Amino acid sequence: MENVYKQSLSLHKKNKGKIKVDTLLPVKDKKILSLLYTPGVAEPSRQIFKDKKLSYDLTWRGQTVAIISDGSAVLGLGNIGPEAALPVMEGKALLLRTFAGINGVPLVIQTQDPAEIIKFVKDVAPSFAGINLEDIKAPECFQIEENLQDIGIPVFHDDQHGTAIVVAAALKNAAKVVGKPYSSLKVVVVGAGAAGLATTRMLLGLECSSDTCQIIPGHSRVRDVIVVDSDGALFTGRENQNIYKQAVAGISNKEKIKGPLEEAIKGADAVIGVSRPNAITKEMVKSMAKDAIVFAMANPIPEIMPQDAKDAGAKVIATGRSDYPNQINNALAFPGIFLAVTKGRLERITQEMKDEASNKLAGLIKKPDSENIIPDIFYPKLTEQIANAMLAVKSR
Amino acid sequence: MENVYKQSLSLHKKNKGKIKVDTLLPVKDKKILSLLYTPGVAEPSRQIFKDKKLSYDLTWRGQTVAIISDGSAVLGLGNIGPEAALPVMEGKALLLRTFAGINGVPLVIQTQDPAEIIKFVKDVAPSFAGINLEDIKAPECFQIEENLQDIGIPVFHDDQHGTAIVVAAALKNAAKVVGKPYSSLKVVVVGAGAAGLATTRMLLGLECSSDTCQIIPGHSRVRDVIVVDSDGALFTGRENQNIYKQAVAGISNKEKIKGPLEEAIKGADAVIGVSRPNAITKEMVKSMAKDAIVFAMANPIPEIMPQDAKDAGAKVIATGRSDYPNQINNALAFPGIFLAVTKGRLERITQEMKDEASNKLAGLIKKPDSENIIPDIFYPKLTEQIANAMLAVKSR
Repeated sequence: MENVYKQSLSLHKKNKGKIKVDTLLPVKDKKILSLLYTPGVAEPSRQIFKDKKLSYDLTWRGQTVAIISDGSAVLGLGNIGPEAALPVMEGKALLLRTFAGINGVPLVIQTQDPAEIIKFVKDVAPSFAGINLEDIKAPECFQIEENLQDIGIPVFHDDQHGTAIVVAAALKNAAKVVGKPYSSLKVVVVGAGAAGLATTRMLLGLECSSDTCQIIPGHSRVRDVIVVDSDGALFTGRENQNIYKQAVAGISNKEKIKGPLEEAIKGADAVIGVSRPNAITKEMVKSMAKDAIVFAMANPIPEIMPQDAKDAGAKVIATGRSDYPNQINNALAFPGIFLAVTKGRLERITQEMKDEASNKLAGLIKKPDSENIIPDIFYPKLTEQIANAMLAVKSR
Repeated sequence: MENVYKQSLSLHKKNKGKIKVDTLLPVKDKKILSLLYTPGVAEPSRQIFKDKKLSYDLTWRGQTVAIISDGSAVLGLGNIGPEAALPVMEGKALLLRTFAGINGVPLVIQTQDPAEIIKFVKDVAPSFAGINLEDIKAPECFQIEENLQDIGIPVFHDDQHGTAIVVAAALKNAAKVVGKPYSSLKVVVVGAGAAGLATTRMLLGLECSSDTCQIIPGHSRVRDVIVVDSDGALFTGRENQNIYKQAVAGISNKEKIKGPLEEAIKGADAVIGVSRPNAITKEMVKSMAKDAIVFAMANPIPEIMPQDAKDAGAKVIATGRSDYPNQINNALAFPGIFLAVTKGRLERITQEMKDEASNKLAGLIKKPDSENIIPDIFYPKLTEQIANAMLAVKSR
């Protein structure tokens, strides 16, 4: 077993997880108990009964989000079920406390039926200021999230939008490094799951409902994206395309390129891998445009190893790993996003807010170079700056 | 507004609730992040995928219980809904951390439909070591709990069993104070909701499924109980009795007394009020047997004020309030019960365990007197002693 895994296992075993529920005040005597529990607690309850919004002020709700997963698409491990997903969800709660100063509650659930997950989230909503959906497989994740946009609190599927926000930020800075306008980029996205389709929507500035996508006016966008799955490039009318792929196909791949990745990638300025280890070869990178941008984000083994991409002529290379430069990690975005949710008591997270989060993230790198296109997670006040950028949209 | 309410409100407002999710280890650098989050976290996930039981060792699950309410019967406030129930559920989490050293996660839910609540609890079960149902109204609470006994983790409705355990303990000691054998007591229970029926089941040593009750062999029990609701005493064949009341009626009220509380209470050794303010009059207490025991537990205003009960001849008086002697409070039981659940990794809480919890609670008072029949919540090692008594059953 690799050392990082061995150490991780023993740390988890020793501490029995990573988080705990603690008290905000010590309960030392009957006096404090009579205020925080019966009979005193009846008064906050009465006040909230008169005005539900007070639940944000008089309980932990205003600072608390749920991290909900059905365990159907966990890391690179696949459908390992709810119990096995719990360490990852606890990890996200750890990050929310550390980087955003808010409470994350991991909830792993027994069902993988979209209608049942939707019902579960609606049921539990009064407990929280927001919901982070996590590691739910495509295409179910699209249906689930779409049906939860009007429940009064934001529901955010991190594998989609967290990835899209960070990738878009990194790509903007990568474009600067290679000296090409962002709006001129021809991009190939490898993988048409949650991350692949959401990233494509973000890069093309699309607002999608299940079976249609529309271009958002005023959104800064790349020239074109070709999405490639295991059956090759998506194009309108292709067989074996679920409705979410069809919707994106209808508005991407302007040249209607067909065929496998080898074909689609020819002449591309950037390739974004959110698929599986070794999906991209050196030959493919060689066939790209000059000064190619390669984001190979499969974990732990990328679509192409950084050295191979470099040897094949890539100029800017990013991965999901912490042991290479340019780590593209959802953790750069979601703490700031949920800080905005709690601070701003948002009812939903709009596309404009996601754009601003992405722009802020890109803007933190003043002089991008090939090994520095995206901030580190310990960048000072990263979370606050993303949250404030999002909340500036709200108050505009 | 009474002072305790004013102070409680300002304390809740100032602190924004009472609990928080905190980290067990500080996240200071990328190294620790790589162990607690990606890529290291994949290993605990892989291990749990191979053996689900490891979720108790490698995550917070083993020390964590959910406190779930639909807000349909909160304190004395009634059906105030999920948001308004949250301060109470947070209070229970506060007590679980303070007295049992474990994590309580408050989940208040949107639905009050029993089938939907059952489904919700089943869905969320993989996240927790146990479930505390709270402030769910009768008779729905009986149906809900009954359908959740075989889901692999204990589901415990505190308003029923917590109350029953503490009342039975107090009554055993009260019997000693008045010098009557516990098994000779004729008891009237006022109120046939969650607490009333569960207490009756406990005092009579009954194991009940929805429509039938059976006597548990070997259980120490009082002579008889008459349960009285707003339509008078329960008896077999009475009209206006749900199936849970019918089941208890079939095995209680041996003399088949009919009529209102005034009739039922005549000659009783003890009356246990779990109903509404001022339900018991001085005249009623006067009509009881000599050295009457009066537990008046409606909150905040009891069924009869202690001084009135005393003036009417009662010898042992208990309430739910902290400002009189003999406070009967669920908080004496549930932290110990859930400590047993987590420590013993129980799959269910048996009647025998509840009996042992009650016996231990009673036994902590070495020399009961009229103002000292039940321990204080700050009694040293109260929680541990209850938990150990329950776990001794398991290992027998």
